[in-house]
Amino acid sequence: MKIVALAGGIGGARFLRGLLAAAPEAEITVIGNTGDDISLFGLRVCPDLDTVMYTLGGGINEEQGWGRAEETFTVKEELAAYGVGPGWFGLGDRDFATHIVRTQMLAAGYRLSAVTEALCDRWRPGVRLLPMTDDQVETHVVVEDEQGRRAIHFQEWWVRMRASVPALSIAAVGAAESAPAPGVLAAVEAADVVLFPPSNPVVSIGTILAVPGIRDAVATKTVVGVSPIVGGAPVRGMADACLTAIGVETSARAVAEHYGLGLLDGWLVDDADADVRVEGIEVRSRPLLMRDAETTAAIARAALDLAVELKRAGVAE
Amino acid sequence: MKIVALAGGIGGARFLRGLLAAAPEAEITVIGNTGDDISLFGLRVCPDLDTVMYTLGGGINEEQGWGRAEETFTVKEELAAYGVGPGWFGLGDRDFATHIVRTQMLAAGYRLSAVTEALCDRWRPGVRLLPMTDDQVETHVVVEDEQGRRAIHFQEWWVRMRASVPALSIAAVGAAESAPAPGVLAAVEAADVVLFPPSNPVVSIGTILAVPGIRDAVATKTVVGVSPIVGGAPVRGMADACLTAIGVETSARAVAEHYGLGLLDGWLVDDADADVRVEGIEVRSRPLLMRDAETTAAIARAALDLAVELKRAGVAE
Repeated sequence: MKIVALAGGIGGARFLRGLLAAAPEAEITVIGNTGDDISLFGLRVCPDLDTVMYTLGGGINEEQGWGRAEETFTVKEELAAYGVGPGWFGLGDRDFATHIVRTQMLAAGYRLSAVTEALCDRWRPGVRLLPMTDDQVETHVVVEDEQGRRAIHFQEWWVRMRASVPALSIAAVGAAESAPAPGVLAAVEAADVVLFPPSNPVVSIGTILAVPGIRDAVATKTVVGVSPIVGGAPVRGMADACLTAIGVETSARAVAEHYGLGLLDGWLVDDADADVRVEGIEVRSRPLLMRDAETTAAIARAALDLAVELKRAGVAE
Repeated sequence: MKIVALAGGIGGARFLRGLLAAAPEAEITVIGNTGDDISLFGLRVCPDLDTVMYTLGGGINEEQGWGRAEETFTVKEELAAYGVGPGWFGLGDRDFATHIVRTQMLAAGYRLSAVTEALCDRWRPGVRLLPMTDDQVETHVVVEDEQGRRAIHFQEWWVRMRASVPALSIAAVGAAESAPAPGVLAAVEAADVVLFPPSNPVVSIGTILAVPGIRDAVATKTVVGVSPIVGGAPVRGMADACLTAIGVETSARAVAEHYGLGLLDGWLVDDADADVRVEGIEVRSRPLLMRDAETTAAIARAALDLAVELKRAGVAE
């Protein structure tokens, strides 16, 4: 069984851990979002790729969901002592090493996909982790506050402002000119099913789908998504702020409709949303809270079972 | 009183701390060696400038003489976990921040002299610290071992090999094409006296003097040096290996003769070398072991007193 999953950060990574437990024999390729990558202190930081890598590789800070376990912050404190920021992005000492290795490899001419493979040589995440693209795509957010109307990097809005200022619009700058990273389209083509974890539908899954070629390739497959919205609110994170920015209601139904009939074949929602119906999309409900390893594996199992069932029924193919 | 001192790493930095104590009212400019600078993990490391900065700024590891006090090595351990080296160069987490700031500023187009000034804004070393040059000068060492005859970076010979393989020759690559950093020649011209701390006469003081213009400027001044050789051996470090490579005997007398009559006016040697005489150079002896703050200040005071005495007597000017 070959599975492709599109993934953002924390929610996607936890779902993937469940998927690995639910389908240990499957060959899983993860296409990771790189739209929220950022250069800090001259170093290239890929938050979503690293969250997937650390989570599946056993290095994640479990409580926090991002960053390394047993982390220290000496480098960051010293940078602050030099008056060098930003201080609002939490880079720990262990994490710094990842970014130093990545930056050095990129400077040497390696593509991000090759760098990610090299980093995974250490972490052995149990999946093939591919960045969506080797090109630079950066999610920018247009905000308006006392400083006026301006576009800022997604991380500044998300991490520094905690999305407290409404996003007037969100754009994946560079996406239209980008190409899928080597292996991405081939993996989708070879996949039996494609899964959308409960990642942010706008700035994670949406950004991956904005890389030319990926949406079309995915659309030919049996695709099942797991709703990141439960009872009208994000399970975690601030996906509602992103959905509002693109004019989509924060509901399990609206997200499925946003993905669209041509793309999504099955949709797993929480029992709280059991009454959701979307024309042309098979909706199933079950508890969606990823409380622990077991409940998370069960959610992944349910998504996979639905995908296999729909595939057998000849949906989408 | 305006003093210029040429300095390498540990020995130079400790002498300078003594000089600051001995002449608190003096305006001291330090011209630092950059020949042993090295790029590690994509970051620019300036060991001698940093040793001076940390020592005078109160951040040095006192026992070791280099690196930061209360240092940790998390980043280095993580880099090793990625299989990324070299492991033989001891970069700590606090130290990494310095190199990250430096590298980021250099990448932004600042010259090393401007970067050094910015770093010193934090450390306030009490002297004006100037790199000898903003150009890249790199000390290479020709060695011959089972891997054949080859040129290696000074740090590889000094730190990794601990100078265990004889140096066939030592070259400051790029020195001939380099120019003194802004302020260097002006500081020498304005100086009342120039001091050579007991730094390595070959790869520290010698490299600084190899930057075109510096030796000539220094030669017009009253110059007093402190011998790094006591009783035929280096006080610390492995200066003997460097002296041998350039065909100079490891003795207080030979080093003074190497600096030469046109350059050196006074020479402070240890009591163990009280019998040293060098034609045309005023030699004085006293205990030269920098045991603590007090003995170090007394050595600096003696060097300065000799310089002032020679200057009054009209030597060199």
